[in-house]
Amino acid sequence: MNEQWTVGDKTLTSRLFVGTGKFSDHQVMKKAILSSNAEVVTVALRRVNLNEEDPYILNDIPGHVQLMPNTSGARNAEEAIRIARLAKASGLGNWIKIEVIPDQKYLLPDNYETIKATKALVQEGFEVFPYMNPDLLAGKALQDAGAAAVMPLGAPIGSNRGIRLKEMIQIMIDELEVPIIVDAGIGRPSDAAEAMEMGADAVLVNTAIATAKNPVQMAQAFHEAVVAGRRGYVAGIGPTSQMANASSPLTGFLHSSN
Amino acid sequence: MNEQWTVGDKTLTSRLFVGTGKFSDHQVMKKAILSSNAEVVTVALRRVNLNEEDPYILNDIPGHVQLMPNTSGARNAEEAIRIARLAKASGLGNWIKIEVIPDQKYLLPDNYETIKATKALVQEGFEVFPYMNPDLLAGKALQDAGAAAVMPLGAPIGSNRGIRLKEMIQIMIDELEVPIIVDAGIGRPSDAAEAMEMGADAVLVNTAIATAKNPVQMAQAFHEAVVAGRRGYVAGIGPTSQMANASSPLTGFLHSSN
Amino acid sequence: MNEQWTVGDKTLTSRLFVGTGKFSDHQVMKKAILSSNAEVVTVALRRVNLNEEDPYILNDIPGHVQLMPNTSGARNAEEAIRIARLAKASGLGNWIKIEVIPDQKYLLPDNYETIKATKALVQEGFEVFPYMNPDLLAGKALQDAGAAAVMPLGAPIGSNRGIRLKEMIQIMIDELEVPIIVDAGIGRPSDAAEAMEMGADAVLVNTAIATAKNPVQMAQAFHEAVVAGRRGYVAGIGPTSQMANASSPLTGFLHSSN
Amino acid sequence: MNEQWTVGDKTLTSRLFVGTGKFSDHQVMKKAILSSNAEVVTVALRRVNLNEEDPYILNDIPGHVQLMPNTSGARNAEEAIRIARLAKASGLGNWIKIEVIPDQKYLLPDNYETIKATKALVQEGFEVFPYMNPDLLAGKALQDAGAAAVMPLGAPIGSNRGIRLKEMIQIMIDELEVPIIVDAGIGRPSDAAEAMEMGADAVLVNTAIATAKNPVQMAQAFHEAVVAGRRGYVAGIGPTSQMANASSPLTGFLHSSN
Repeated sequence: MNEQWTVGDKTLTSRLFVGTGKFSDHQVMKKAILSSNAEVVTVALRRVNLNEEDPYILNDIPGHVQLMPNTSGARNAEEAIRIARLAKASGLGNWIKIEVIPDQKYLLPDNYETIKATKALVQEGFEVFPYMNPDLLAGKALQDAGAAAVMPLGAPIGSNRGIRLKEMIQIMIDELEVPIIVDAGIGRPSDAAEAMEMGADAVLVNTAIATAKNPVQMAQAFHEAVVAGRRGYVAGIGPTSQMANASSPLTGFLHSSN
Repeated sequence: MNEQWTVGDKTLTSRLFVGTGKFSDHQVMKKAILSSNAEVVTVALRRVNLNEEDPYILNDIPGHVQLMPNTSGARNAEEAIRIARLAKASGLGNWIKIEVIPDQKYLLPDNYETIKATKALVQEGFEVFPYMNPDLLAGKALQDAGAAAVMPLGAPIGSNRGIRLKEMIQIMIDELEVPIIVDAGIGRPSDAAEAMEMGADAVLVNTAIATAKNPVQMAQAFHEAVVAGRRGYVAGIGPTSQMANASSPLTGFLHSSN
Repeated sequence: MNEQWTVGDKTLTSRLFVGTGKFSDHQVMKKAILSSNAEVVTVALRRVNLNEEDPYILNDIPGHVQLMPNTSGARNAEEAIRIARLAKASGLGNWIKIEVIPDQKYLLPDNYETIKATKALVQEGFEVFPYMNPDLLAGKALQDAGAAAVMPLGAPIGSNRGIRLKEMIQIMIDELEVPIIVDAGIGRPSDAAEAMEMGADAVLVNTAIATAKNPVQMAQAFHEAVVAGRRGYVAGIGPTSQMANASSPLTGFLHSSN
Repeated sequence: MNEQWTVGDKTLTSRLFVGTGKFSDHQVMKKAILSSNAEVVTVALRRVNLNEEDPYILNDIPGHVQLMPNTSGARNAEEAIRIARLAKASGLGNWIKIEVIPDQKYLLPDNYETIKATKALVQEGFEVFPYMNPDLLAGKALQDAGAAAVMPLGAPIGSNRGIRLKEMIQIMIDELEVPIIVDAGIGRPSDAAEAMEMGADAVLVNTAIATAKNPVQMAQAFHEAVVAGRRGYVAGIGPTSQMANASSPLTGFLHSSN
């Protein structure tokens, strides 16, 4: 599917963004990114830190992808803003995924602080991708603040529970003009396809790929599922009905010639 | 994905079977079959009838596919058996999909008559594919009777409602050895992916393709979704959890260096 | 709610049937039956057996309830018929719940053998209550055989998973004339209320009561939930809508007087 | 069930709050309030307005109930605060339900403005009940601001769609200390029972009662469902399992004596 779409200052073909956490090692991560066909990859700024004993992660992220550093570790707008600036100063570019997460059990975002950080960082020229609790009005505020996209969660990060908050995400898709990227909770390729069928612009997947038995193959499955779901959406999904509708002529076959 | 599987007397690559009812015209049907990559196509025997004013449908089914004529119109085992024999006598081969449907509102199959017809037709050398109400014990009976596969319905034919009877279909997948082909109710590509992730061997789709705004594109979307779901199943889907699991290191980023 | 209904040869007020398995002791069972307000109680014939070391269970079932012995342990129609006759010969009356369960993992019924047993026992004058896999055509066959009611399962026995096979049970409720009693899987009071709202005539609950922390209180909760669900059904549940409908006048309050 | 609970400055027995919109006439509303056993009733301040041609609604709200005027019509915090003050000045007491709803299609609340209004009105001595989009962090902010309870929506107002945002409401119930009152979307008695089984402290129902065929009877059904769900919660709902658990001894009945 060669349909292109635009988000931030980029024109993309892929609608699958991938995260880099939780992989068993960097080589698996690298191969999974490649088999996912992703053009955007998120990475926690902290993991880019040169002081860490960890091998330098950026060496293992394919060079053609757009980096989207995230502010994980930030507990309020101010911390998110500082991390974003550090990312840019480190040469990671002007895309930033805002994660403001004061809660350590469910890892849920603080929409209000996220809106504050978004406003500030848009002013500073960033392309801002806020991770958020699904909420039409918060989505409007982020849109008005100039976010490049909004990233509502389907279920808690890493839970693999699917798009449990579908009711509100569907409303956001129907009502907002900014691109919607469903993030967190997507556990199976069918969840990703479903998000696309709902009309989402893209999905971000991390845990479901990184913790699969075969992450490289799973990354490809997610790629295919996103393409399938998007193509189904474009092809026009038919209505559902309570009763049956015959696919084949059902009555009187043996009897009609009598 | 080049993984092969065997059903009846055939080895297949595709896990998407398609139906030929409800298409606006034969050219659309033909193109949709091609874009679906299907290797098995079902057609109601009646529609093959030379006496009909309808152009001869078989001319528009690509020659490389395995035909699976179905007994739609049969209301009991005896009628299904007669239609199956007519199909074979008409040169349509030895695959037969049993549909015994006395109910005209929900088009639900009669499992008992279906088992009877399956027993008889297996004896006559057919590869028998029974459409059935999901039921572990009826599935065992069909397996014992020598069915080539069993085809439980996800929801009423043509309803596009998805795999609503998942609870029982999952049990059948887990407990039976005969291939399981989920038939009826599959309305969106994500439904097809989900069936594959559950461990089904294949799906049959008709209404969702034929009544899409763009049937040819939708057929391709279903193809991709089936491949994605199967690949996800093989790659090993991770467990779900009630709480969150951090994808990225979440605490103390800005604070750890103090 | 004093609405009465008729099933078999009885007129009842309660729509909650209870099972007697799994209780920690007979006194808890007895109190739970009383607090459930049930008028029909099922008991496995085997547990009535005088040879068991267990105290005689019938002493602890309140005398005013209708006993419905069940054929648990039967693996085919013949065994179910023998158990039914033993029950009647033991003075347990002419109500019999048919359970034909060859599968020991999911405890799923064999509809075909169940239909056979039902036909035979109706002929012998029993009021027959068949436990069954949800299936419209099997339900029609049981209705035609003279069953007093049909008892489709919502989910496997003892799983507490709720009415997972709702799609088919709703069709049975809509299409059959024989009373529908949802049996197995009902795990919470809200599940029981939901069955009644769907239009079911009654529910049978066992595990969810017997294995609650406080079975006596849980039995009362189920009683209340069944009454609530039935009353809601009779009161006429309103339609659902995709969008909002204001409960209160929403616009222009402060502005209208300008 | 005589268990009492405390919310704001009141000790209540009932856990069902009812709304007064959409009733066909005041007499039906009055009877429905009585049959609901509600002790708290919400009313839009505008409908209390003496200038309206409508008969004075307060005459038809039973005198023993706690009034909870709401700020419907407010589009931001400032308007909500003004309406709250008007309500108090009109002698309607110090309970106020905050509704800040800028969106007229889905009637979704603005959490941020709601938090602002809550802070201000708590300072002024109100017992504040904010209607909100389900969100753990916004719930914490409202709790910290001194809200008497928080009222997350299950689905859009008046949609009767049930508790579609269950995932987030369950997290709020598990993590917050302030009482949780599920508001909006509850369409059937079983939905209300389910909210209570999840551990919610109360529910608010309006449309589902007011638009039932028989609102007075439906109000009673909701009362019973709330009692049932709460009792089930207190009685300790058992775990669910994937497989079956026999309620009755299942094997070897006829065979064990051989």
